[in-house]
Amino acid sequence: MDLSVWAPNPERVEAVVGGRGHPMTRAENGWWSARVDTDAVDYGFSLDGGDPLPDPRSPWQPHGVHGLSRALDHSTFEWSDAAWRGRPLASAVIYELHVGTFTREGTFGAAIGKLDHLVRLGITHVELMPVAQFSGRHGWGYDGVDLFAPHQAYGGPEGLKRFVDACHARGLGVIVDVVYNHLGPAGNNLARYGPYFTDRYATPWGQAVNFDGPGSVEVRRFFVDNALAWLRDYHCDGLRFDAIHALLDASAIHILEEMQLRVEELEAHLDRDLFLIAESDLNDSRVVNRREAGGYGLEAQWSDDFHHSLHAVLTGETGGYYRDFGTIGHVAQALRDAYVYAGTYSGYRQRLHGRPAAGLPGYRFLGYLQDHDQVGNRAAGERSSALMSTDLAAVGAALVLTSPFVPMLFMGEEWGATSPFLYFTAHEDPELGRAVGEGRRHEFAAFGWDPASIPDPQDPETFERSKLDWSELDEQPHADLLEWHRSLIALRREWPELTDGRLDGVEVDYDEAGRWLVVRRGRVTVACNFGATEVDVPVAPERTGRVLLTSSKEPVTQKGKARLAPESVTIWSA
Amino acid sequence: MDLSVWAPNPERVEAVVGGRGHPMTRAENGWWSARVDTDAVDYGFSLDGGDPLPDPRSPWQPHGVHGLSRALDHSTFEWSDAAWRGRPLASAVIYELHVGTFTREGTFGAAIGKLDHLVRLGITHVELMPVAQFSGRHGWGYDGVDLFAPHQAYGGPEGLKRFVDACHARGLGVIVDVVYNHLGPAGNNLARYGPYFTDRYATPWGQAVNFDGPGSVEVRRFFVDNALAWLRDYHCDGLRFDAIHALLDASAIHILEEMQLRVEELEAHLDRDLFLIAESDLNDSRVVNRREAGGYGLEAQWSDDFHHSLHAVLTGETGGYYRDFGTIGHVAQALRDAYVYAGTYSGYRQRLHGRPAAGLPGYRFLGYLQDHDQVGNRAAGERSSALMSTDLAAVGAALVLTSPFVPMLFMGEEWGATSPFLYFTAHEDPELGRAVGEGRRHEFAAFGWDPASIPDPQDPETFERSKLDWSELDEQPHADLLEWHRSLIALRREWPELTDGRLDGVEVDYDEAGRWLVVRRGRVTVACNFGATEVDVPVAPERTGRVLLTSSKEPVTQKGKARLAPESVTIWSA
Repeated sequence: MDLSVWAPNPERVEAVVGGRGHPMTRAENGWWSARVDTDAVDYGFSLDGGDPLPDPRSPWQPHGVHGLSRALDHSTFEWSDAAWRGRPLASAVIYELHVGTFTREGTFGAAIGKLDHLVRLGITHVELMPVAQFSGRHGWGYDGVDLFAPHQAYGGPEGLKRFVDACHARGLGVIVDVVYNHLGPAGNNLARYGPYFTDRYATPWGQAVNFDGPGSVEVRRFFVDNALAWLRDYHCDGLRFDAIHALLDASAIHILEEMQLRVEELEAHLDRDLFLIAESDLNDSRVVNRREAGGYGLEAQWSDDFHHSLHAVLTGETGGYYRDFGTIGHVAQALRDAYVYAGTYSGYRQRLHGRPAAGLPGYRFLGYLQDHDQVGNRAAGERSSALMSTDLAAVGAALVLTSPFVPMLFMGEEWGATSPFLYFTAHEDPELGRAVGEGRRHEFAAFGWDPASIPDPQDPETFERSKLDWSELDEQPHADLLEWHRSLIALRREWPELTDGRLDGVEVDYDEAGRWLVVRRGRVTVACNFGATEVDVPVAPERTGRVLLTSSKEPVTQKGKARLAPESVTIWSA
Repeated sequence: MDLSVWAPNPERVEAVVGGRGHPMTRAENGWWSARVDTDAVDYGFSLDGGDPLPDPRSPWQPHGVHGLSRALDHSTFEWSDAAWRGRPLASAVIYELHVGTFTREGTFGAAIGKLDHLVRLGITHVELMPVAQFSGRHGWGYDGVDLFAPHQAYGGPEGLKRFVDACHARGLGVIVDVVYNHLGPAGNNLARYGPYFTDRYATPWGQAVNFDGPGSVEVRRFFVDNALAWLRDYHCDGLRFDAIHALLDASAIHILEEMQLRVEELEAHLDRDLFLIAESDLNDSRVVNRREAGGYGLEAQWSDDFHHSLHAVLTGETGGYYRDFGTIGHVAQALRDAYVYAGTYSGYRQRLHGRPAAGLPGYRFLGYLQDHDQVGNRAAGERSSALMSTDLAAVGAALVLTSPFVPMLFMGEEWGATSPFLYFTAHEDPELGRAVGEGRRHEFAAFGWDPASIPDPQDPETFERSKLDWSELDEQPHADLLEWHRSLIALRREWPELTDGRLDGVEVDYDEAGRWLVVRRGRVTVACNFGATEVDVPVAPERTGRVLLTSSKEPVTQKGKARLAPESVTIWSA
């Protein structure tokens, strides 16, 4: 077994294999290496004589975050996707899922059984919430600590490969959510190996990752190599970077720009379409601008402004960050400008926020009515369908799926799943588990919630309740809502103006008091009534030649007006 | 007297004028205002019943940083520079000076008496080290606390206006060094008024300025207004931003970009050439790239890489940051690429540093053989002339003044002044004074200096010793060195290729072992011998038609070689 590890901190490193320590040799650059003649497969590293720790780059953690690492040969898996060349993001419809709750079994293997459902729905890409090994059997995964090792409870490395291979066999791309802004609290030994973290910046999770200080060359390489590993070793098509606003890096070449460069290099080498997507709270077009224009060049970013605009109008909610939204004008602005806050004052943030996204195509942004955060970060984990009528959910779906953005659904959204998506953990350390639950109760109490009503993340029932109930699929109103989503996605594929990225081609008309919004994209007109009463909206006769879809009965049109039923949407072609 | 102040922190604010408190009225946005009928001119603000504090935007602090503020009407000064339209930076030769030590008197008024010397030398712009009111009578000024008030000991607001007016009358532009990355430790009350500072970032001086957190709108406005005030109220032509790498701002519109936008607005309004220059430790072309290319659009930045390259070759020093330099190849690279570190590993920084400045003209960078920091941050404050032979100082001057960068001299450099430029302070608080001295001794002890040999910053003699001795001017070798600088500057003005910004037009030839460097810029060839022995350097006969300047005897040229005297430079035209 050939072992190596970057560990500039300790004076002495031993490879621990088969219960015995083997001295390692240090090179100039802080890397240690050893060749161990053994039949064993599990190993760890002892720093300065301490207990063996997992490899920071462990490819497999069969015994959890505190156990030994297991060697893995990526060349032995038999891939069947040799012909796969990727699938472009600009025309994608993404489906975000959490492996642990997507199916009752909560494994990659079980998830394969649901892929045909996604294909029938019209999905092009599956986005997995983080799959890197984290503390405990189940959890959201944002506290991953073995960033190179697919979570064992999901099926480990082999399971993920089978899943990706099965997706590709069905024409589905795979995106993996990766978290580079912090590591989980339990099992994180990186700081013992080297200067992975810094005090120079503060993040919501404490110390920031050291992307720009002394020793950062190897730290950057660690994360870059991690990004490449998912794309290369697991054949994934894209990555979703969690909370890039917390990747604090004053280097002239930001870590995201470096990752994009390296991914482009790999893309050319693999001859496969690869892409990077950012979750960004910056409203800064630099993230997705091309490098020639001073940007990082990422393929796309999530658009929370579009989500918040839509959510606030559909639910009437005004708390927290929704206070910056709430009018139909906000939805209209998001559809035309992507950023609603583009250098303007945000009352929620108490500061100026963003800059214009001028010139960017719509497909640089992901548009969604819900995502894991927007659902799961609610105290009771309610999905959109629990916060609005099925009629309004249908209106929201139409706006998302006819938007100039790359649409994304959150698992179960397509049928209005009744299960909540709660925040759940399974920390082995009871003290940590208690602290997480208390932190959460405290956080929501600040918003006026009764702490006793907040589900305990550590309670296994919280996890169980969050699993999708696939038996709902054939019941009403779920079956109709599913069919509605399928029709909308088919429509998006049929009409090229719907995937046209030119935001300046989006025409919007609305009336706050009348509670209606009309969006015109080429030959297609989408008219929404958010209100509880019928409303007449202006639609020129030459644009209402044919009803493509309606969530209600077909509206009466006359004299350039269409009469929309309460909480309904109708889509015409010219 | 109409008074107003932004003070969101206190519950109650009183204007204290003539020894009496006058209640102020709070507006929504945290601004308080009052009209006080009085003949008094001095005022302060009492927060929640406390002792009166100076106005954060005080225009004048006649009694020092702890005293009351004084009202000031900028409209009464009689300017004589109505015809002044500024002077372009691209063709400038800048002279950096510290008002307190430039003359024996240490005032703006006395500095006016030396302006004709600068005009004769060929200087186009004077750059003043910080002039905002700081703690104590004398100091470097980087610990300013009343950012809108010209330092009283220098001559206060009236003195600065007279100085700028006198400069403009002689065709000299004026640049002021402003410090926006921190405020001085003594007299800094800003945090009592509002959220001026943040814990989210660490700087070498502690808390960072809050440019991007809650409440930052008014904080940003404070600094933007300060920048505009120097240009508008004091008729300055440009600003030098101190250490912009410590302006930590994750906003989509960085504070520097905002300042550039606002200065361009003022420039159009005043119909006068204005510019912003950054001291930047980032080697990031974004600072000076145009906004259309994702940059902040500043006019220029200081080039420490050029300084360090040149200093290391001329002195042979290899300590501290000079370890990253030391070869003639570094000088050559700086001349061609501006950044020597452009995405490459810096051993001193222990990380990757910089990105290529590809496409930027040379006049986006200031080039210098010394500046206040490079001299004054040495334990003994030695100028270049104390660290190398007069002959090598002449070589260094030739490389700076024929470089593609905007050349800058540090006061006294033109004659090789013998006085050091030490670090001096005059803190009124003896505890703070002691702490500053101890910090400095500690810092240098880490580099192997004998702490007892470090001059005490608080010792008035340290300040006195740092003053220029103008009586040296007519003595040798000073008179010759002065004439050398004058001739070089005249040459720069005469030959347009020397102010041509195209870095790809700079041809460089060198030999490390031979200790020579030849720089060709259009028709002009500059050949330097850094070594202590004669050396033959290759110079094509058609390029050595006429000797324009030589620091030694005219070199013999034959068969495409020129024989250079030890430590000499010769400049030919084709």
